Amino acid sequence: MRLSARAYRLESSTIREILKLTERPGIISFAGGLPAPQTFPIDRLRAVCDHILATDAAAALQYSRTEGYSPLREWIADYRSTVDRRVEAEQVLVTSGSQQALDLIGKVLVDTTRSVLVERPCYLGALQALAAYEAPFTCVPSDEFGPVPAAVDAAAARHEVSCLYVVPNFQNPTGRSIPLRRREELLACAHRNGLIVIEDDPYGELSYGGSQLPSMVSLDPSCVVHVGSFSKILAPGLRVGYLIAPPTLLPRLVQAKQAADLHTPTLTQRMVYETVQQNFMTRHLQRTRSYYAEQCRSMCSALRRYLPTVTDWVAPQGGMFIWVRLAQGTDASKLLTAAIAENVAFVPGAPFYFDHPETNTLRLSFATVPAALIEEGVSRLGGILNDARMTSRSGPTLASIATA
Amino acid sequence: MRLSARAYRLESSTIREILKLTERPGIISFAGGLPAPQTFPIDRLRAVCDHILATDAAAALQYSRTEGYSPLREWIADYRSTVDRRVEAEQVLVTSGSQQALDLIGKVLVDTTRSVLVERPCYLGALQALAAYEAPFTCVPSDEFGPVPAAVDAAAARHEVSCLYVVPNFQNPTGRSIPLRRREELLACAHRNGLIVIEDDPYGELSYGGSQLPSMVSLDPSCVVHVGSFSKILAPGLRVGYLIAPPTLLPRLVQAKQAADLHTPTLTQRMVYETVQQNFMTRHLQRTRSYYAEQCRSMCSALRRYLPTVTDWVAPQGGMFIWVRLAQGTDASKLLTAAIAENVAFVPGAPFYFDHPETNTLRLSFATVPAALIEEGVSRLGGILNDARMTSRSGPTLASIATA
Repeated sequence: MRLSARAYRLESSTIREILKLTERPGIISFAGGLPAPQTFPIDRLRAVCDHILATDAAAALQYSRTEGYSPLREWIADYRSTVDRRVEAEQVLVTSGSQQALDLIGKVLVDTTRSVLVERPCYLGALQALAAYEAPFTCVPSDEFGPVPAAVDAAAARHEVSCLYVVPNFQNPTGRSIPLRRREELLACAHRNGLIVIEDDPYGELSYGGSQLPSMVSLDPSCVVHVGSFSKILAPGLRVGYLIAPPTLLPRLVQAKQAADLHTPTLTQRMVYETVQQNFMTRHLQRTRSYYAEQCRSMCSALRRYLPTVTDWVAPQGGMFIWVRLAQGTDASKLLTAAIAENVAFVPGAPFYFDHPETNTLRLSFATVPAALIEEGVSRLGGILNDARMTSRSGPTLASIATA
Repeated sequence: MRLSARAYRLESSTIREILKLTERPGIISFAGGLPAPQTFPIDRLRAVCDHILATDAAAALQYSRTEGYSPLREWIADYRSTVDRRVEAEQVLVTSGSQQALDLIGKVLVDTTRSVLVERPCYLGALQALAAYEAPFTCVPSDEFGPVPAAVDAAAARHEVSCLYVVPNFQNPTGRSIPLRRREELLACAHRNGLIVIEDDPYGELSYGGSQLPSMVSLDPSCVVHVGSFSKILAPGLRVGYLIAPPTLLPRLVQAKQAADLHTPTLTQRMVYETVQQNFMTRHLQRTRSYYAEQCRSMCSALRRYLPTVTDWVAPQGGMFIWVRLAQGTDASKLLTAAIAENVAFVPGAPFYFDHPETNTLRLSFATVPAALIEEGVSRLGGILNDARMTSRSGPTLASIATA
């Protein structure tokens, strides 16, 4: 059976494969990217859903507009507007999760002829979505503030380019945020090089302190497609996300969505809309942020206690992840093998690099593990690293303890 | 802003544009393709949804497997198995409506190098989904039994080909079904020419008599991707469909879906699964078939009464549509203009033809219009055609009454 050329670019996410390994009972898993079900507003979702099906079921179960449920589009536009910059409902397309937003952007903007610039390391789901449209990727050297503008310019000088993909807030996998100054520089750089910036922001609202930097789309709506999601702030199983695009681009994205799935389920869109009414998100986000902040504190404290010298990491100010750098020469995938033997799991950093992986990195998620188990799991990781005498940067590799 | 080459192949469905025109209050619309909300099992959907959110909300609102909710996959496999031919759950991928199934098939099988063979006339949503993957289309001459096998052979001799797209039962737009003998001939033809048959079957369960012909996938699973949907038999706003593919192809389709939207909403999948339990579909399909059969009878009776001589049509044995052929030279789009002036709407047939449209055809949907209004609407159409002295095949064109 002959497949399309693009089919050979499709891959199962390495991380999903790792997750399958780590789902066995009894394992302390820092591997998943799942949000904590404790943060799902279950009672409210149940109440609004029942209300919708009691009062307006025929409409809630019928086909609906590709663009999305109009009241939800308006709410998203208001929610994403700032004092300085109004987002119009006509710029909003409701999508089947933010993954679909990336897929539609790929369909409309990406082809084989021009490079997509990506961060290093980069969120894997974006690489998957865009690879399906046969994008050549170009990795942009990135520092602790995000992609380096001069490196973007240099890449654009070497290649035909279409888009720059960034996760500006509490990035998956590194947890880092792009400061305001760097956002402005990157936007200027996008203008210079005719780039569309794909601003993928699933975690911005999980800022522990509650403050958020201006989004790139609010700084310059003309060259940014903003991608948002209710997955981390309400519930991912509803698969409701959205994108905000320049008015000239939105109709094409709507056509792409019509071809892709006609529309996002009417019922789940209405559930989201009814849930966020009466200023619910303000209170709900306070609770959700507190929850993740406390989880993060537990993990940082365990890391300080059990991995004091072998690692390099920065406490994130929001989101769900801590990025850990092991001593040079230590292979995180071998550490994973040893860790799984002790019923602890995480995701090695290598798959997040499109090229030249830094194999001594790993991602820890603290979202779903109870505090006592966070401590226990991190202590086991510390034990493995100490046993292997990995406490100095000149120590042996982990090969000796990698059992398979 | 430069778009991808494929973006220029994307178009808004002409029919969706017509539907916007025909949604104004007071209009009797035979234009829509919407199923009747009277057939939605609202009370049951409400009850199962509340039960799920009361008893297992954390799982129902969480991320889930790309392949679909395992119990639903198993149910679909059983539902689609026949005495002779077992469908395995591992061949089933749950999709976000059958439109997404077509999109994923396009992503994995279609490229610019090989033609997709389509019926004439053809369901528009399929053309939209596959056009996004830059398929060159080749129309296969079709008779009242479906695509003509010799014409498929001839097309395959002239072009590199990848797929043959067919709607085997109560086709949208024509209402015709492909008889068993023709199904077998087309499968033999697919084997001869290395074609994958895309068997899109949203209407098969709406057979008024209840009997169904063997599906093409049950006749020969090795070269068929079967596309199914709960949109016409439960409720379209849930956006739950599925595909059944050969075991060698399914993993690629799963990868494509992972890149496209990670998974179909967990909640809506579970709602479908809980709804179909306890043999619910048997009773529900009886009610649904009776409803559409009665609607169809109303329209056929009105057509016989008010359009006795000007038209050529066949009473369908299932589904939601009647295909009407006007006298040669009569332009259905001009009839539409006159009809809208009298608050009646339908869809002209021309958009359903990829090339060489037969402009004297139109599609009438009887799904959602009450019987009395079916009679009233058809009588107005008859009045227009009679006014215009279109009662004989040699009569004048409708141009005289086309007011815009």
